[in-house]
Amino acid sequence: MIYLEDFAPGQKYVSGTLPVDAAAIKAFAAQFDPQPFHLDEDAARGSFFAGLAASGWHTAALTMRLLVGSGFRPAGGIIGSRAEELKWPRPVRPGDELHVETEVLEARTSSSRPGQGFVKCRTTTLNKNTEPVQVLIMNLLVQARS
Amino acid sequence: MIYLEDFAPGQKYVSGTLPVDAAAIKAFAAQFDPQPFHLDEDAARGSFFAGLAASGWHTAALTMRLLVGSGFRPAGGIIGSRAEELKWPRPVRPGDELHVETEVLEARTSSSRPGQGFVKCRTTTLNKNTEPVQVLIMNLLVQARS
Repeated sequence: MIYLEDFAPGQKYVSGTLPVDAAAIKAFAAQFDPQPFHLDEDAARGSFFAGLAASGWHTAALTMRLLVGSGFRPAGGIIGSRAEELKWPRPVRPGDELHVETEVLEARTSSSRPGQGFVKCRTTTLNKNTEPVQVLIMNLLVQARS
Repeated sequence: MIYLEDFAPGQKYVSGTLPVDAAAIKAFAAQFDPQPFHLDEDAARGSFFAGLAASGWHTAALTMRLLVGSGFRPAGGIIGSRAEELKWPRPVRPGDELHVETEVLEARTSSSRPGQGFVKCRTTTLNKNTEPVQVLIMNLLVQARS
């Protein structure tokens, strides 16, 4: 458990890896983002993505899964308050293997919430060629020790 | 199909509704965000959320599902490029029913991508009391007619 007081800019956390296959891409899309380029190889070929690609929200969900399983354990849980940026520089493809690198950018106490504060992090999701597939800058709500 | 040229600030789109129950909250969490307050009523009671709450990424995924099923149909698909803001003002609870309201904030051609441009939208996800549970400001990549 890492309390607010123990976070400092520059700290880094690296997750394990998670594979992504076509079945998982299609299953997520069928439930949450049923657009042709996330569901079907043939339809995806003629789309912007030029091939089957994971929904950005699937990448975001997998990022959270990797983060929860990593050594990044803020006191009170990983509770997102407000993201300032969320972008997908390149698509996640079948056969990709993802991992997540998180860097602390800022830690500050809350003026309105005694005993709590905010930790701003950049969480970058990378594929097996260590190319970024998602960049998320999130303010997390974190418990203070005192 | 709505082309880039047909988008203008102030246009609004309202989706249908989608119910959220405890089983769906726990199933999403088990797969993508396995933290106690998303998985178990008893553990959630003593947490920041003071009761079972959906993962914010679950809310985001349901928002996409509602958006894809609505009349909001940009040419080329709903392709998020970069979100400028994503926040969850209050948790989604078992028994909630969600819908989504999207407002076009800006439409502009791309200087680097001929025939394409960006549409900036605010997509607000509301519960059955029409209280916002998520606010997303997203830049979408949209095809131009010409």
